[in-house]
Amino acid sequence: MITNNDIKMKPKALGRISTKGLSEEEKLDIKYMKAAIAQAKKAYTLGEVPIGCVIVYDGKIIGRGYNRRNTDKTPLAHAEITAIKRAGKVIKDWRLEDCKLYVTLEPCQMCAGAIVQARIPEVIMAAENPKAGCAGSVMDILNNPDFNHQVSVKKGILGDECAKLLKDFFVELRARNKAQKGNPQ
Amino acid sequence: MITNNDIKMKPKALGRISTKGLSEEEKLDIKYMKAAIAQAKKAYTLGEVPIGCVIVYDGKIIGRGYNRRNTDKTPLAHAEITAIKRAGKVIKDWRLEDCKLYVTLEPCQMCAGAIVQARIPEVIMAAENPKAGCAGSVMDILNNPDFNHQVSVKKGILGDECAKLLKDFFVELRARNKAQKGNPQ
Repeated sequence: MITNNDIKMKPKALGRISTKGLSEEEKLDIKYMKAAIAQAKKAYTLGEVPIGCVIVYDGKIIGRGYNRRNTDKTPLAHAEITAIKRAGKVIKDWRLEDCKLYVTLEPCQMCAGAIVQARIPEVIMAAENPKAGCAGSVMDILNNPDFNHQVSVKKGILGDECAKLLKDFFVELRARNKAQKGNPQ
Repeated sequence: MITNNDIKMKPKALGRISTKGLSEEEKLDIKYMKAAIAQAKKAYTLGEVPIGCVIVYDGKIIGRGYNRRNTDKTPLAHAEITAIKRAGKVIKDWRLEDCKLYVTLEPCQMCAGAIVQARIPEVIMAAENPKAGCAGSVMDILNNPDFNHQVSVKKGILGDECAKLLKDFFVELRARNKAQKGNPQ
């Protein structure tokens, strides 16, 4: 597993995304998910699993984040956690009650928990994560009626694009690891 | 709800805790839980719900944390998250694989998720949290066989003491809120 910070990987460009015939809300969802993808690509270039997130308040992005778990050497450096931290500094409150969170992959148990703790009312996500996702795949932390907050979830916005970004990343990483094994320095 | 930083509240002293007849492991658990309680008391003095946490590696405390959610204005300022952040800096890895985490109250969904993400193998907790705990009370995030990591959990170490600390806190807070309402400035 490559974990050092010297890796420079280059994600492929997204194909053209047509918004013809979409509603204003759908167009906005695509706009902000593209911003989340731009974050995910920053992770990709560092050799980190490409996951990105933005938080939107009153039509403005007030928090951005991307996965830097290996780079920063902390499990807390997930995209959503970083975005929540930054948004909190802008709002000056731990409650992000009027915000929407856009994320390129279904949140893990920690990030889903942080979203509930931050009282974020709506999450828009792209690709699902059948092995570890906690917006319904393995567990549903975002919508448990026993918690004091439930989150409305929209799935599949640019889902194919974000799934492809992840797939490209792992193909490239495996090829690099294989090449490194075959040619140890 | 009192949320400003000027509050100075004073937790009562813990009663004497006898360790007579206990095993070495039980004595250590009590020693580290007392250190977690010392953290919880720091939260208490700030008018924050008194929850504290320490992380132990190789017999040493390498991460401490206490609840500062209102003070720091972020949902991420839970005791466990702060302790995990600090322990990661000491270990220089996002994996805290040989650590034990001591916490005075059953973790919420975010903190339970962070514990799984950090691959912490063992959690020792004091009081249970029937309304929001995620080590079995509302959900069991620490022990879900579908995740790639499961956590061994020991419950009830100084549970009565930590439950009393929380109860004292809420009694004092309600009295302060009532007095403030009756005497607005």
